[in-house]
Amino acid sequence: MITIEDVRAAAKSIAGIAVRTPLLASWAIGTDLWLKPENLQPIGAFKVRGAVHALLSLPLDAQAAGVITHSSGNHGQALAYAGRMVGSPVVVVVPEGAPAVKVDAIRALGAEVVTVPPAERESRTAELAAERGLTIIPPYDHRHIIAGQGTVGLEIVEDLPEVDVVLVPVGGGGLASGVATAVKALAPRATVIGVEPALAADAADSLAHGELRSWTTEDRYRTMADGLRTPLSELTFAHLRERLDGIVTVSEEEILTTVSLLARAARIVAEPSGAVTTAAYLHHREELPPGRTVAVVSGGNIDPALLAGLLIAEELDA
Amino acid sequence: MITIEDVRAAAKSIAGIAVRTPLLASWAIGTDLWLKPENLQPIGAFKVRGAVHALLSLPLDAQAAGVITHSSGNHGQALAYAGRMVGSPVVVVVPEGAPAVKVDAIRALGAEVVTVPPAERESRTAELAAERGLTIIPPYDHRHIIAGQGTVGLEIVEDLPEVDVVLVPVGGGGLASGVATAVKALAPRATVIGVEPALAADAADSLAHGELRSWTTEDRYRTMADGLRTPLSELTFAHLRERLDGIVTVSEEEILTTVSLLARAARIVAEPSGAVTTAAYLHHREELPPGRTVAVVSGGNIDPALLAGLLIAEELDA
Repeated sequence: MITIEDVRAAAKSIAGIAVRTPLLASWAIGTDLWLKPENLQPIGAFKVRGAVHALLSLPLDAQAAGVITHSSGNHGQALAYAGRMVGSPVVVVVPEGAPAVKVDAIRALGAEVVTVPPAERESRTAELAAERGLTIIPPYDHRHIIAGQGTVGLEIVEDLPEVDVVLVPVGGGGLASGVATAVKALAPRATVIGVEPALAADAADSLAHGELRSWTTEDRYRTMADGLRTPLSELTFAHLRERLDGIVTVSEEEILTTVSLLARAARIVAEPSGAVTTAAYLHHREELPPGRTVAVVSGGNIDPALLAGLLIAEELDA
Repeated sequence: MITIEDVRAAAKSIAGIAVRTPLLASWAIGTDLWLKPENLQPIGAFKVRGAVHALLSLPLDAQAAGVITHSSGNHGQALAYAGRMVGSPVVVVVPEGAPAVKVDAIRALGAEVVTVPPAERESRTAELAAERGLTIIPPYDHRHIIAGQGTVGLEIVEDLPEVDVVLVPVGGGGLASGVATAVKALAPRATVIGVEPALAADAADSLAHGELRSWTTEDRYRTMADGLRTPLSELTFAHLRERLDGIVTVSEEEILTTVSLLARAARIVAEPSGAVTTAAYLHHREELPPGRTVAVVSGGNIDPALLAGLLIAEELDA
């Protein structure tokens, strides 16, 4: 497992490339709530932290040769951004039928996009890596990625040393693993709680049973929180089992009304996956320890039409 | 006029109370554009900076006695927030008929709200100040307020010493006066350009003619950028005349499409007044010097229904 020293090394990597996000005291939402707005990162999600650190941790010749991944989502964009900043070639393998807006965003960052049939994503990635001497950088099942995401926790404790509770979203578990590692090392008194959609609560299920339990793709894809549909890996499960103090699940309605609240009361655009922690704070207080609470808002890549609909629904209710 | 030393003193006042906002490199909007997101401040606008500094600059007995203002907008909320943080009583005089949502927000921050007929706002404020020994804190025509707003400029140069152009909204001129003071002192090579709505271009008019020209309230109120309807004062005009390098005006359509773009591409909620600088960058490049440009996004207090409508309009166009 990674240590706080790994997270400190990552903090050095990302300095000047990832945004040093502030903590936002959100009195209008709760007098003991602070938001950590990772939606403000370039590409709109925390993932730029891990991608930059993973890239900069490679030997210089491997950095020069380039990297490859097969995420068409935030990780693909984050790696493309990291490559652009560091000067490394980046290849992103995307499945046929991936949304044009995401593919265009990856290309706009200067990465090469290779489109393949969905079933061939992993095999073609491995083939291309071998053919071209590229290093594969997976989205979360990777020590440097976890350490990079852990810088979110490092910064939280730097800015609010007396923090009592940290709420962190759990998808593949990279962010939660890194944040729990940093916070438990630097503020051992603090509690770190994972948050998942009830409709994709495979981490809660796994932690409750002490073993990695896989949910079907069909089940996990029911949630609107598209960043949290990913299953844990053995590596992230090992971190969460040892370092997470608990896990809370939130409903789809709780998530969506919180997206609207974050835009109105905190003036930030959060995607559903980014809103789960604030939703837990608002709707599941009785399951959380009391005290100074930080909610990690992991990203802001929401369909504008969905955001508009949620804002209007709230107006009609009011 | 204020000096850089006044701004440095303000930076000490506000440390730990106002948010130290980061610069956001907004590659998706422009490769040489950084945003200074003051919408992330408590109460959603830069005004908390000036209000905190003005309050903390008072003698301790005056701080204990309390302060008063007659703004029902962002300044009223900012002063209420400052009082709450510093522990000073705050009275906000609001005109009958002020929006309940704004009055409620001021009360929620612990300030006393006194409702008076619109025509009596100034006289009742003066009376109450005299009766109760309160200090009047105006929204911008005040050296400590200008110095407090200037901390925005100080932070810009700290974070991007090689900045070439700073774009700052001009309403009453407090923010622009403070930012120009700080930037011209710390990065004399940089250019500071004010931005106004064409429909409330009284500052551009005044600067072009070398004298303070007042536009009618009716004229100034045509713009949707409600934070920029305020006229300059003699004090802010003196600062702008000496320290601003130029002024650019933007259309209502440019402002509103930029509000939508900032939500989609930078994932921040900006009010129309906060979007004017990015609108100038996007639509008036030929009037601006080239180079690394910082756009101050002054606030994010927008009607959610308006934001929703702008997001949907953009979808329909796409």
